[in-house]
Amino acid sequence: MKIGMIQRNFVVGDYQGNVEKILSSVEKAKALGADLAVTSELSLCGYPPKDLLERDRFVSAGKAALEEVAQRASIHTIVGFVDHDPTRTVGRRIYNAAALVGGGKVVSIHHKALLPTYDVFDEHRHFEPALLADVVPVAVMGRRMGLSICEDIWNDPDFWKLRLYPLDPIATLVERGAEVLLNISASPFTMDKRTLRPRMLAAQARKHRRPLVFVNQVGGNDDLLFDGHSLAFDASGTIIARAREFEEDLVIVDLAQGTGAIRDLKDDTEAALDALVMGTRDYAHKCGFRSAVIGLSGGVDSALVASIAVRALGPKNVLGVSMPSRFSSQHSKDDAEELARHLGIAFETIPIEGPFSAFLDALAPAFKGTAPGVAEENIQARCRGVILMALSNKFGHLLLTTGNKSELAVGYCTLYGDMAGGLAVISDVPKTMVYRLARKVNEQAGRVVIPESTLTKPPSAELRPGQVDQDLLPPYDILDQVLELHVEEQLEAPDIVARGFDPSIVNDVLRMVRVNEYKRRQAAPGLKLTSKAFGPGRRMPIAQRWRGN
Amino acid sequence: MKIGMIQRNFVVGDYQGNVEKILSSVEKAKALGADLAVTSELSLCGYPPKDLLERDRFVSAGKAALEEVAQRASIHTIVGFVDHDPTRTVGRRIYNAAALVGGGKVVSIHHKALLPTYDVFDEHRHFEPALLADVVPVAVMGRRMGLSICEDIWNDPDFWKLRLYPLDPIATLVERGAEVLLNISASPFTMDKRTLRPRMLAAQARKHRRPLVFVNQVGGNDDLLFDGHSLAFDASGTIIARAREFEEDLVIVDLAQGTGAIRDLKDDTEAALDALVMGTRDYAHKCGFRSAVIGLSGGVDSALVASIAVRALGPKNVLGVSMPSRFSSQHSKDDAEELARHLGIAFETIPIEGPFSAFLDALAPAFKGTAPGVAEENIQARCRGVILMALSNKFGHLLLTTGNKSELAVGYCTLYGDMAGGLAVISDVPKTMVYRLARKVNEQAGRVVIPESTLTKPPSAELRPGQVDQDLLPPYDILDQVLELHVEEQLEAPDIVARGFDPSIVNDVLRMVRVNEYKRRQAAPGLKLTSKAFGPGRRMPIAQRWRGN
Repeated sequence: MKIGMIQRNFVVGDYQGNVEKILSSVEKAKALGADLAVTSELSLCGYPPKDLLERDRFVSAGKAALEEVAQRASIHTIVGFVDHDPTRTVGRRIYNAAALVGGGKVVSIHHKALLPTYDVFDEHRHFEPALLADVVPVAVMGRRMGLSICEDIWNDPDFWKLRLYPLDPIATLVERGAEVLLNISASPFTMDKRTLRPRMLAAQARKHRRPLVFVNQVGGNDDLLFDGHSLAFDASGTIIARAREFEEDLVIVDLAQGTGAIRDLKDDTEAALDALVMGTRDYAHKCGFRSAVIGLSGGVDSALVASIAVRALGPKNVLGVSMPSRFSSQHSKDDAEELARHLGIAFETIPIEGPFSAFLDALAPAFKGTAPGVAEENIQARCRGVILMALSNKFGHLLLTTGNKSELAVGYCTLYGDMAGGLAVISDVPKTMVYRLARKVNEQAGRVVIPESTLTKPPSAELRPGQVDQDLLPPYDILDQVLELHVEEQLEAPDIVARGFDPSIVNDVLRMVRVNEYKRRQAAPGLKLTSKAFGPGRRMPIAQRWRGN
Repeated sequence: MKIGMIQRNFVVGDYQGNVEKILSSVEKAKALGADLAVTSELSLCGYPPKDLLERDRFVSAGKAALEEVAQRASIHTIVGFVDHDPTRTVGRRIYNAAALVGGGKVVSIHHKALLPTYDVFDEHRHFEPALLADVVPVAVMGRRMGLSICEDIWNDPDFWKLRLYPLDPIATLVERGAEVLLNISASPFTMDKRTLRPRMLAAQARKHRRPLVFVNQVGGNDDLLFDGHSLAFDASGTIIARAREFEEDLVIVDLAQGTGAIRDLKDDTEAALDALVMGTRDYAHKCGFRSAVIGLSGGVDSALVASIAVRALGPKNVLGVSMPSRFSSQHSKDDAEELARHLGIAFETIPIEGPFSAFLDALAPAFKGTAPGVAEENIQARCRGVILMALSNKFGHLLLTTGNKSELAVGYCTLYGDMAGGLAVISDVPKTMVYRLARKVNEQAGRVVIPESTLTKPPSAELRPGQVDQDLLPPYDILDQVLELHVEEQLEAPDIVARGFDPSIVNDVLRMVRVNEYKRRQAAPGLKLTSKAFGPGRRMPIAQRWRGN
């Protein structure tokens, strides 16, 4: 049996487009000899559809799209869709489902049993889980296929010390006769999943002594990045096919021969860069933007974001804007301009002195007798925000924000200033990782793209004379470690201090994280790379008094 | 048996403060003759704690707080807390729980069986549900009390045609001998719940022929408003006690006599105003603000928000700022000033002409050859945002945004402009309701607070000469009806047209709702009044192509 692993970049809600993507890949798979084509989770509507699932017409349009695929697919095909049972009066009426279609009709329907409801996932909000009695294999060309959906395969009691669910649908499918394991997924990328996911899948194949085919969605949908990286294993848990990361792909795996294409993997830093490029491109294109505008400060964050934007959209579609103030150093202006030249993007300089002075004048009566401080600093950042948004509004560019995760965590950023924009490209990239990615940009280019001085000078917001980030923040390598323990591992101050960090630094950092929750609530959507990003996967109250001990 | 219904305004995460609130009320209840004191859901940590529940120390601090209440409470008391079972290796390890304490110790613990996971609720994200076997009454002074938590009481199969859960914990408690029904809740306010909730509770009491005591949290926590409105019913479903709406209260109900205090109810418009005043006061105070700043345009939205802020914080703590532009009419400036005078608040005028001109000058080279349009209009709104945020940053005022739900729905507002602020007071109030609330402000004051011309002139953003809202939008009475059908009832265009609305208006409105999702993602938290507010209870993808048919 030959299976075509169809790894496509679906657009949420674009039934017609997604149907055509599926069918064109099915035809290609057939031409390459496949007997069965397998698409990813909710391939018809795209993942995650979120609260569109609450609209009746959204669900019924999906059933119509399924009928169309069933009628037009020329080989057996597995499609992800939203199943609907209007007769139910208790529980939810829709299911996260997979359909086997073939011979012009829907052959069988399978419901997802385990509904992830943590981090970015809200599946209990929408779906009814499968009944255990319905978790049964389906025959395709005489072979019993154990078909499961994403989370269903992540609950192996031999793999995890702690589990969220009492059921193990994969074990159930094997007990009920599955000869081949198929899992269709929309499993979002995080850095640690690059190794964790293949290891977990291999363990399932090996333990059950069954070949396993895992087909994942690829592409960015808002904050979520789907890496593709579809995999097939033989019954010993050895990888026999692997699709590309961060790109559409079609891989044929021959289960009888145990063979298939195995695409190369990149290193972690390259993968992170590719993920961000994909996420930026998809957010822009799926929202209807062809071009982007970025404020270039001469610093490493905006340099990295501009480099990512150029890869995502092409240098002709990126505008870099330098907005120097009375506090900007000559090297910042020079670095920004040099970066733009290296990237081959359009570059404009729009000084903020005029608007900044005008605001100070307008506010002079109200501010009389006060000393300059954060209010005045923020006005500068907000002048830049107004200019960039004006360029966005006038010319239809997507404004990309340039703040990193470390800044966003401690609130070292200005709401409506440098936080203004439609997409926060690196808001889940800690500052220390920003440097790694920036150096990788130069390494991959084989030349200086991001100027060396951008990579080596002390980071500064340049909102007052002589300011550097470390006036207010601990060194970034310390800060990033503390933040990882607090944000990703959810540890509080005493636990972090117990790991050997300075108590006053830890308390300061955690206080800053806490009091800046309101800023993050209004942040642009940010591409998720780590196990815990700020955004929909981290839901914190703003008005609260928990102090961690 | 006399029960003290303890309706308090808890702060999320403030264990020490919440413990003192509970204990002081318990002592008062005892002094008034109560045998049993009942607090609301998660009273120890405050509701909703959201992802603070993922922190081990947050959970263990709650158990310590429970021990303290147990030791110090001088009568039997029911407390809401987070129970924790560290021995579990499958499923979640925490429960939304109620403890009966008395005699210096924890007498029994009860877990919530039904975990709401829809709209603003995410309880499946955090909690393990009760085992059915554990849903049993507990004896207090010889009477078997059927204790349930919030959602547990909302699933009566005789009340609803469709239900989310197969279990009915109330029926189970009655079958297992409950003589009195107690429900502790953190049931957020929405307009329709003022009648729905008493009706549903009365039906439960009547059906099971048991007295029922319902104790609800009061106060605002971020976007959620808890109305209190705690209730007691006799076994025939008649109300025998009712606590205040939107205020803390302590009501003693005598179950043997069937008597208790029954506080007056307000009309719906008064209730909505009180809800918004409470939400504004609590957000400000729980976040540490004493004062607010508001941009006054002379229009009805900012007039209403200023009136609410004055009630919430006092006139001495509210600053109104008029920021006229070259397009502002004299009547707008006059109306703003008159409003401030009537409210007795500080008032400043800060014209935006200087910064606006300076931006146009700075952008002139980039904008060369383009016609003035939305970009220039937005610059004006953003100049106002910068000025208001500068005043907020300088003087520590909370900036209140003034946009209503109709505007936010169709994107008739400027991101980082009039949308800038810490709290969106009326972002869940449709424009037609804004007028009703504004007239109620004058009616309650018995004099003109909001100028009559503010209430009667055609609404305008005044961002270009002669502009009025109805240049771009349908009449507000039509718009609000279409929006209610689409946003609250989740209907798509064909269904709304079938109700008799003009297809071109419906399609236009729904298109505007769709393309402005990105603005709402970055909106300030807004106080929730309706069954579906923009915010955490409505989770829509931004990059998507669903068009509704």
